[in-house]
Amino acid sequence: MPQRLKLIIAYDGSHFAGWQSQKHGNTVQDHLERAFRQVCGEPLRIHGAGRTDAGVHALAQCAHVDVPDTRLPVTRWAAALNAGLPPQLRVIKCARVKSDFHARFSAVGKVYRYRMWSGPILPPLEHNRAWHVLRALDPDLLRAAALKFRGKHDFAGFAANRGQEVRDTVRTIRSVKVRRRGFLWTLEFEGDGFLYKMVRLMVGAITDVASGKIHLEKIVDRFERKANSSARFAAPACGLYLVRVRY
Amino acid sequence: MPQRLKLIIAYDGSHFAGWQSQKHGNTVQDHLERAFRQVCGEPLRIHGAGRTDAGVHALAQCAHVDVPDTRLPVTRWAAALNAGLPPQLRVIKCARVKSDFHARFSAVGKVYRYRMWSGPILPPLEHNRAWHVLRALDPDLLRAAALKFRGKHDFAGFAANRGQEVRDTVRTIRSVKVRRRGFLWTLEFEGDGFLYKMVRLMVGAITDVASGKIHLEKIVDRFERKANSSARFAAPACGLYLVRVRY
Repeated sequence: MPQRLKLIIAYDGSHFAGWQSQKHGNTVQDHLERAFRQVCGEPLRIHGAGRTDAGVHALAQCAHVDVPDTRLPVTRWAAALNAGLPPQLRVIKCARVKSDFHARFSAVGKVYRYRMWSGPILPPLEHNRAWHVLRALDPDLLRAAALKFRGKHDFAGFAANRGQEVRDTVRTIRSVKVRRRGFLWTLEFEGDGFLYKMVRLMVGAITDVASGKIHLEKIVDRFERKANSSARFAAPACGLYLVRVRY
Repeated sequence: MPQRLKLIIAYDGSHFAGWQSQKHGNTVQDHLERAFRQVCGEPLRIHGAGRTDAGVHALAQCAHVDVPDTRLPVTRWAAALNAGLPPQLRVIKCARVKSDFHARFSAVGKVYRYRMWSGPILPPLEHNRAWHVLRALDPDLLRAAALKFRGKHDFAGFAANRGQEVRDTVRTIRSVKVRRRGFLWTLEFEGDGFLYKMVRLMVGAITDVASGKIHLEKIVDRFERKANSSARFAAPACGLYLVRVRY
């Protein structure tokens, strides 16, 4: 009897062409499916909680997969898979779940972090791991802009089109945390769900406000008008981290 | 009139073949000298506070260089040099110093940090940035072993030969800090000077003690015998960070 496994996965996004499988692609999904094929001897399909773009990192992405009945105990799966994965991609945990668990549809929330560096010189160890913001940022405006996103809003104005229509664009951001340590800013958003490129478009708007490029109230306008502004700006992928998926 | 510049330099050691210039080499010194040549139009020699091996990182390496009289103000040098450097290598600061300042001989102390991960799975973002220790470490033994290095000792037993004889192998470690956050251990050593591979051989001995491979007193024996033990083990370069050079 096949069994369903839930995987917790971490990766350094700068080494991969995103999550979603591509033909001959160096994607997270491709690497994982190859590793499963090595262990199980047959092709399996992995279902992620959400696709991350090229360059986006994950501390605890989540996925599920149905594996054939192997004699491998569940505690051994992570090590068996990691043996076939590049060091920039690791299965952190593997657990047996009921067959109605779905990595994407069972998720009730996600946490994303965005890191940016506002100093004149980006430290080498932050290359590909934080966005180097070259504009001066007003700390008070930055915090005020970030907090505008808290609550239930129609985020159509903060979503990119992925080729498919998303009917319901209302999402709730349950918490927004803003931390600063020297030049390093860390924004953390916890919400019930996120639309495509939503966090990067939010951070783009926050830094546009903090650098005086747009007015704070423009964020509220974008919720109300529900229209895509032509001046939208998505912060780069390298600063984005999928921190957790909640079930 | 030529002027002497003091440089503060940071690099991600995993991208370079160490500090010291090599023929057609991808070393930190080579990259810096090429960048100076671009800016000044003539070859210059850079003198580092110390050579770091391939894989070793630096948060604030120090160097000096004599530059011809350019009209470039000292505040513009860092940006001018960084324009010609890979993003894994950055000149953080540039200052004019007196002509008797010498990056190596004027140094009165250095701070090194060593990071290691003692959990079963190395997080992808720690790849090349921490040593993945696969042995179980006893926290009390680890701390006790690290503190044995504090003070003035003959470190001949904790130095590798670089082809040249070092006559005076007595060094003073002024402070040892041991921190632990989950599986991540961070050891920090501040001393008046460090012999070749000294920190890595110290960390090798500390983990040998913490994993029960050698007895704590073996560290003291190695100071007293002043002889190179055949069972010495140097912790890998990827966990080592040059944090600061003191003048």
